[in-house]
Amino acid sequence: MALVSAREPVYQRLADLLAGLIQARALQPGDRVPSVRAFSRQQRVSVPTALHAYATLETRGLIEARPKTGFFVRAQRADALREPRVAPARPRITDFAGLDPLATVLGDSSHPGLVPLGAAVPSGALLPAQALNRTMGVIARRLGDSSLAYDVAPGSDALRRVLARRSLEWGGRLVPDDLVVTNGCTEALSLALQATCRPGETVLVEAPTYFGVASMLRDRGLRALPVPIDSTLGLDPRRVEEAMRRTRVAACLLIANFHNPVGCLMPDDRKRALVRLLAERGVPIIEDDIYGDLQHEGSRPRCLKADDLDGGVLLCGSFSKTLAPGYRVGYIAAGRWHDRVLALKRSQSLASATLPVLAVADFLRNGGYDRYLRRVRRAFRDQVARMREAVAGAFPEGVALSRPQGGVVLWCEIPGVAAMDLFRRARAEGISIAPGPMFGPQGGFEHCIRLNCGHPWSDRIARSVRTLGRIAHELQARGGRANGGAS
Amino acid sequence: MALVSAREPVYQRLADLLAGLIQARALQPGDRVPSVRAFSRQQRVSVPTALHAYATLETRGLIEARPKTGFFVRAQRADALREPRVAPARPRITDFAGLDPLATVLGDSSHPGLVPLGAAVPSGALLPAQALNRTMGVIARRLGDSSLAYDVAPGSDALRRVLARRSLEWGGRLVPDDLVVTNGCTEALSLALQATCRPGETVLVEAPTYFGVASMLRDRGLRALPVPIDSTLGLDPRRVEEAMRRTRVAACLLIANFHNPVGCLMPDDRKRALVRLLAERGVPIIEDDIYGDLQHEGSRPRCLKADDLDGGVLLCGSFSKTLAPGYRVGYIAAGRWHDRVLALKRSQSLASATLPVLAVADFLRNGGYDRYLRRVRRAFRDQVARMREAVAGAFPEGVALSRPQGGVVLWCEIPGVAAMDLFRRARAEGISIAPGPMFGPQGGFEHCIRLNCGHPWSDRIARSVRTLGRIAHELQARGGRANGGAS
Repeated sequence: MALVSAREPVYQRLADLLAGLIQARALQPGDRVPSVRAFSRQQRVSVPTALHAYATLETRGLIEARPKTGFFVRAQRADALREPRVAPARPRITDFAGLDPLATVLGDSSHPGLVPLGAAVPSGALLPAQALNRTMGVIARRLGDSSLAYDVAPGSDALRRVLARRSLEWGGRLVPDDLVVTNGCTEALSLALQATCRPGETVLVEAPTYFGVASMLRDRGLRALPVPIDSTLGLDPRRVEEAMRRTRVAACLLIANFHNPVGCLMPDDRKRALVRLLAERGVPIIEDDIYGDLQHEGSRPRCLKADDLDGGVLLCGSFSKTLAPGYRVGYIAAGRWHDRVLALKRSQSLASATLPVLAVADFLRNGGYDRYLRRVRRAFRDQVARMREAVAGAFPEGVALSRPQGGVVLWCEIPGVAAMDLFRRARAEGISIAPGPMFGPQGGFEHCIRLNCGHPWSDRIARSVRTLGRIAHELQARGGRANGGAS
Repeated sequence: MALVSAREPVYQRLADLLAGLIQARALQPGDRVPSVRAFSRQQRVSVPTALHAYATLETRGLIEARPKTGFFVRAQRADALREPRVAPARPRITDFAGLDPLATVLGDSSHPGLVPLGAAVPSGALLPAQALNRTMGVIARRLGDSSLAYDVAPGSDALRRVLARRSLEWGGRLVPDDLVVTNGCTEALSLALQATCRPGETVLVEAPTYFGVASMLRDRGLRALPVPIDSTLGLDPRRVEEAMRRTRVAACLLIANFHNPVGCLMPDDRKRALVRLLAERGVPIIEDDIYGDLQHEGSRPRCLKADDLDGGVLLCGSFSKTLAPGYRVGYIAAGRWHDRVLALKRSQSLASATLPVLAVADFLRNGGYDRYLRRVRRAFRDQVARMREAVAGAFPEGVALSRPQGGVVLWCEIPGVAAMDLFRRARAEGISIAPGPMFGPQGGFEHCIRLNCGHPWSDRIARSVRTLGRIAHELQARGGRANGGAS
């Protein structure tokens, strides 16, 4: 029973124990798991606790009850699938044909009539709305008149202090003065690009990468140098070195932790090698760590910033994926660009909204955030697992799926299916998805889509995945006919 | 009694009536005003109402009681002073000697130990903190989970609808789709500059102008072409025409309504002439209307945007000077640059904080804003009047004062006194002011300071003005000795 810590409900730990055995193939699809009664005896817990653990595993899609026979490990069809291919070296530029998928996907994210598989947003039902809003109300009353005052950049001391303390978790050692509070991670990234790059210069990015990056680069008159990533290990430092031999790079913008859209986690040795490589060449790294707190298993991953010795890493993050998208609370630790970033923040937006920042600071400080994170990490892990299974069951043969190690999104490659067609037809049937070409700063990913798994699994979502599968089959058949069977 | 509308307290209207007579010199300094009893008979109001009106005029510094004699019009010493000179054509660049006055003035704005005459911020005591925060709480509870959702740009329908409706007040005819919600007026101005100008281009600005403008231009790699303004009528279209004959201009950034730092109001014919002139030359106007709702007398002034026929005016505004600096609720109606501004807002900050935006929208919609504005306009008017009198009484001879027609700031020119020295010494004595050189995009204004009048008049402020006067006298005497008497 040493595994069961005092802070975690017992049934949860037991469920995790069995889930671990299933993941390690110690229990294989079709295997019978111990009866509830036997399990309760083995683990020295009550029958209701054992039952609760089994119910949890059922919800997570890992085991299934067969009437009058017992519980069995479910076939994880997704496990049999390959992972998406690395992006082609010379992608075609996608013609969006007058449609702005970015505006559509973002705009649709708050549309209650659409199934929300497009934008990477967590379900409101998982977020601590009541606790956060109540905290904000309490702070507003306590501050009275001064609750309306500007929180001029660098922004709230309280938030910067708690962020500095939390930096220990990812291997950092920030002090409050290292940080500037921003209007979400988006503003942090935008400030970082402005501080480090001049118009006309080139920024090395992952391919695929977060779709906001391409717009940001375009807005600043910057060029993108996309480097394909491995779908499990992320960016390979050797590819970076090679790319930089051919092209002069002003900065790198990277998502090492739970990459968007793929979900992979860069191993620590790659992180260290990358930071060293770029420090040697004097090239700053803009690190987008917005998903860093959302590991599905194990401990909080290190940031690239943890290995930063010369202030060359500009760490950007926010609470938009973990706590409150609409609070717009983000931050940047900009290393040797700190003063420049601070001046830019002042001149471009002066301050972030005072009360949301203070509410988040309070929530982080009082321990609410950690309790909440444990719950939401598990939810996202389970939702991603359910989505993987559902896609594996519904999509045409040959579909490839990423194996996200954190975060809320899943990346699918569907050979022979034009993602833009799937996107358009899905939307016509009330389903929002994000088409692959959005994630290629220079196009590509024509056969990929990203699915948001931020919402609790439901019949509505299950039906939608089946609908996506049907459309994908139809498109594949049509494409197959058109292309004489080539995909 | 036709003057007294049902919506205004009677005493207030009566006070305004007398104030108008004083302003028109129908009642002159030293004149006795009717006794309270006589006035109550004349105006057919109760004695307490008449007394209330007189007390109001006393607070506003317009009349004074002489024991056992009655009420008399106070000498308005400020009226005898000249107005600040137009800026020199070729100002010297100020050497800030390692001190960043912008960061200092902004940072000091929330410092409770400093007398707040620096940043242009209204006192929290005047703002409807309780009503706004309560509104936000009610909305948060009503929305529940979705209160945390992104309010992706263009932002809240509710706010854009009420802003469109209110545009009728300043001569506009906006529809909700013309507007994008921003993170305060600062972000609106920053987006407007990015949408209309490319690095290296030149922006025509007023001299002096809001200090944030110089930083914004520098951050974007833009050049400033400062054109001196008249201290009563603002920018002269003929000067603009002349300046543009010599220099190619990509945009003009102007504050036509209650100019910051001077407080003047551009007359309607100048506004029309300017808009026509710049439309003919295809040069966009970025209009900073942040003080537009804060007229001291009469009706809401027109915006330049009201005369815009070809979408060449980008109107920027916010509620930071009227309702809630820390809510960061601003907007832009960008005319023919709308799509570009929308894309920039999405890629740079994605959304503004949801709940503060919705709270402001609700406050505007339910009529609370208009009731509140009537109160705060009067407060600002009175505070500016008191500040003018106090400065006239305490500052060295030769001081020149602007006559603000709206807003919260006063512009002073003190011959022979180096503003940066005054700024530094004042700060050492616990008083925050804004030194003139901050307001010159290319320096200048070495003998000017801006005083914030956003706080209710108090002994503390009165003492501070006397302290400023003492320091100014000392600096002038020293400067006089050093310069052999020249100022």
